[in-house]
Amino acid sequence: MTEFVCLVCGRSLPHGDLQTCPSCGPAGILDVRYDYDAAARTLTRDALVARPANHWRYRELLPIRPDVVVPPLHVGWTPVHEAPRLAAWAGVARLFLKDDGRNPTASFKDRASSLGVLKALEFGYDTIACASTGNAASSLAGLAASVGLRAMIFVPARAPEPKVTQLLVFGATVFRVKGTYEDAFDLCRASCERFHWYNRNSGTNPFLVEGKKTVAFEVCEQLGFRAPDRVFVPVGDGCIMSGTYKGFAEFARLGFTEKVPTLVGVQAEGLSPVKSAFERGCEMEPCRGRTCADSIAVGHPRNWRKALKGVRASGGLMMSVSDDEILAAIPELARATGVFG
Amino acid sequence: MTEFVCLVCGRSLPHGDLQTCPSCGPAGILDVRYDYDAAARTLTRDALVARPANHWRYRELLPIRPDVVVPPLHVGWTPVHEAPRLAAWAGVARLFLKDDGRNPTASFKDRASSLGVLKALEFGYDTIACASTGNAASSLAGLAASVGLRAMIFVPARAPEPKVTQLLVFGATVFRVKGTYEDAFDLCRASCERFHWYNRNSGTNPFLVEGKKTVAFEVCEQLGFRAPDRVFVPVGDGCIMSGTYKGFAEFARLGFTEKVPTLVGVQAEGLSPVKSAFERGCEMEPCRGRTCADSIAVGHPRNWRKALKGVRASGGLMMSVSDDEILAAIPELARATGVFG
Repeated sequence: MTEFVCLVCGRSLPHGDLQTCPSCGPAGILDVRYDYDAAARTLTRDALVARPANHWRYRELLPIRPDVVVPPLHVGWTPVHEAPRLAAWAGVARLFLKDDGRNPTASFKDRASSLGVLKALEFGYDTIACASTGNAASSLAGLAASVGLRAMIFVPARAPEPKVTQLLVFGATVFRVKGTYEDAFDLCRASCERFHWYNRNSGTNPFLVEGKKTVAFEVCEQLGFRAPDRVFVPVGDGCIMSGTYKGFAEFARLGFTEKVPTLVGVQAEGLSPVKSAFERGCEMEPCRGRTCADSIAVGHPRNWRKALKGVRASGGLMMSVSDDEILAAIPELARATGVFG
Repeated sequence: MTEFVCLVCGRSLPHGDLQTCPSCGPAGILDVRYDYDAAARTLTRDALVARPANHWRYRELLPIRPDVVVPPLHVGWTPVHEAPRLAAWAGVARLFLKDDGRNPTASFKDRASSLGVLKALEFGYDTIACASTGNAASSLAGLAASVGLRAMIFVPARAPEPKVTQLLVFGATVFRVKGTYEDAFDLCRASCERFHWYNRNSGTNPFLVEGKKTVAFEVCEQLGFRAPDRVFVPVGDGCIMSGTYKGFAEFARLGFTEKVPTLVGVQAEGLSPVKSAFERGCEMEPCRGRTCADSIAVGHPRNWRKALKGVRASGGLMMSVSDDEILAAIPELARATGVFG
């Protein structure tokens, strides 16, 4: 890791305990940069063969110290399944699933949380906080418990009861905020500043996207160091898309793959501000709406700029699907593959 | 695989599409036997290094053909975590968790179901059935979907709604039986005979325990080819205990480990017929009772004889815990380790 670069003003900053660019404020998302020549010397195909089957295998491209003790839960290196019956249903020649439900708290968010708790410990915090509609919260609660950090979780009032139960079981303190995800987000940020808690909000925290990008590394490595043609990514705050693009771009830069896949961002029809911004070619306008897909129900996405930059750089696009289509896809997927999404 | 041996009459039978011993009836549990000398020639520490990180890595000790195509879902090789805070809480020097919740349908039962669907395909069935209080059912539904088999699931009326939902999502046909697990079990067996469905009931199917034993192989291998001192195993029907003992015994027999651990079987206080049989030193007497631990709520265990044989051979014992202790242990475990059991 060499520096932070602000994606708004382009300024270089020393990396450290920062959330966003001090000059640009909350919009000034910081991007972690690396010495890729140095990374390429030790991160090689041969070296990877002997590394542990988790996402720390890519340590040269993660913002961690070489001697860090990683959390005990096993994060990453989730299965890639070829799904021929689903491919036939979709009318494509080949289709693969990356099943990130196989992470320790059953979601992709463990990739980010595992980085978040490591950075909190490194910076000397005893408490870590986040605002979440669900999966990021469960993930933070579980990972915090695994390393002995206190977790403070801000959830919107509509958060499903079983997800809140999971947080309490992990010992987190849960604040049910009477309001939307955005209200929970703002209250979390204010509380972190006031009480000196570490802020694990992937919309702003610069390190979390570094954990998320490992999914792209794994997809390429698991396909024999080849990038797929197209990758479909759900979009709420935009952080998964940002991370996925960064991972594919870094692997191509290091010569592990020959191309970056075309990235397709998928939003829920009822709440699709990133898709609207993509189609109109202008700034994202926060909006209100409803969808049953609570994990991507974000009316004011924090990371839309970086997400769309990735979609455009890959030659991709944004699309939306209705709640009926989402609900129908759950059993379609499960019946054709045995994966319960 | 060389033969079946009936654990009641001791008779040797050719292995094949049988559930229990034709002479002894449902009580005549069949044990799969192997040519251990042949297995030892290719199942070596060196060979294991290069094998896939799933439970098929032990193929010489599994009842499958060398050229079989295994199900696409990734089963086994789940993490072993050392849990120092939990060890301190329990007052022991070292304590490890084997987190089988990391299997594809989130339970240990995937080890057995993955064998079940392979044998159903090998024997030419298009439908597979089971009776289950929960996890075995979800597991069978998921694994059957993954290989394109039809699944028929018999659940007792008290089965929790979310577990039934999971079955339906996977496309299984679900029969909610007005009665206990035992009634569901009997109806399933009768239906399998009448409609030519393959019976995946781990109380009687001889192959399933072979999948379950892989958990013991993995524990030993993940601890550096050492057996732990004591292993705690939940007991409902007794099949997990039977499989765990068999796995540890086979690994010791092949010289991978120096001993078989002391096995401690744990039942729920409200329904503990196997513990009673152990303590009284006599035949198991079916009983009625209640516990919140629905996955081990079995009043008429089918595999108690094999389970107690394993417990005794290991120098172990049976114990029981109250529902209050079970419920308190869920957050204790989650908070000390990040594992949600």
